[in-house]
Amino acid sequence: MRADTAAPRRRTVIALALVVAGALGSGLAISAGYAAPEPTSADLTSAEAAAHAPIAFPQGYTRWTHIKSGLIPAGHPAFASYGGLHHIYANELALAGYRDGRFADGAMLAYDLFETRVTPDGSIDQGPRRHVDVMVKDARRYAATGGWGYAEFAAGADADRLNSGQRAGCAACHEHRKAQGYVFSELQG
Amino acid sequence: MRADTAAPRRRTVIALALVVAGALGSGLAISAGYAAPEPTSADLTSAEAAAHAPIAFPQGYTRWTHIKSGLIPAGHPAFASYGGLHHIYANELALAGYRDGRFADGAMLAYDLFETRVTPDGSIDQGPRRHVDVMVKDARRYAATGGWGYAEFAAGADADRLNSGQRAGCAACHEHRKAQGYVFSELQG
Repeated sequence: MRADTAAPRRRTVIALALVVAGALGSGLAISAGYAAPEPTSADLTSAEAAAHAPIAFPQGYTRWTHIKSGLIPAGHPAFASYGGLHHIYANELALAGYRDGRFADGAMLAYDLFETRVTPDGSIDQGPRRHVDVMVKDARRYAATGGWGYAEFAAGADADRLNSGQRAGCAACHEHRKAQGYVFSELQG
Repeated sequence: MRADTAAPRRRTVIALALVVAGALGSGLAISAGYAAPEPTSADLTSAEAAAHAPIAFPQGYTRWTHIKSGLIPAGHPAFASYGGLHHIYANELALAGYRDGRFADGAMLAYDLFETRVTPDGSIDQGPRRHVDVMVKDARRYAATGGWGYAEFAAGADADRLNSGQRAGCAACHEHRKAQGYVFSELQG
């Protein structure tokens, strides 16, 4: 979710994150709209600096295991940022983690969001990609956020566009799924 | 699609198949509703008998590569049989075939159909599975139908429930994609 509000308050942000998480049901939850300024280097400890180092674009993630999909339709409160058809993919390490909620370092999940297109006869087809959200497990590096790092890549971009405030929003919402390893989606049959 | 009409005429069936194929956009096309009686053994040549031998349930297909998804909403002409959220998966051989439309023997595609559930806040989530449709490439065995065999498995079942007339409906519709190897879906970016 981008910073499309000038100065949202944190309370509002957390509330929105919860709405969005609910909206997605068991889908991967979403960073909130909180757009705090990036900390300067003087603000960061070395651990914080490591946690904020860029997450690399997960090349090949569409070949990971598809876990499930869902759709946020027009009129939904999260439509502006998350409207459309989304697919959740898990790499091999993440796939193993779904069994007991223990995700090993290196586990990665991707939430791949597409616009929808209504065909002339009324079926809903997959349109252009909007963005890809990513969770990366590294218990030490991301100790402050449950062991997960969060990133978002605009369609066609290979650089994470989240700022630290947005990442904090992701983590705050995923905290509600601590017992499931901070992961919202569940493996389908 | 099951035989839910007592005695549909073939022309109606082909028209329906085209509607359904259009409905799915670039999705895997669908067998039509034609419900001819199963041929008796006296009707079959040995080649026909081979072509009608059961297609085995494709164990593990949800771990194949996810190609794309789509949704057939309520009110769509194909809703009764194909309404819901579908995912298309390709095994490794099928994945290679998307590049040039030449699918090697052993290529398999699965069209996995789920009911949808509307969550309290209005997002659309994946519900229980409805059925799985499968295409299997074997140029010799299925020579009469463009080299592809067709099967459909009800949710939880491991036996193909299509009859020979329904399989003919699948093949007739897929004929329109001969230049793409008889496959409707296209690999997404």
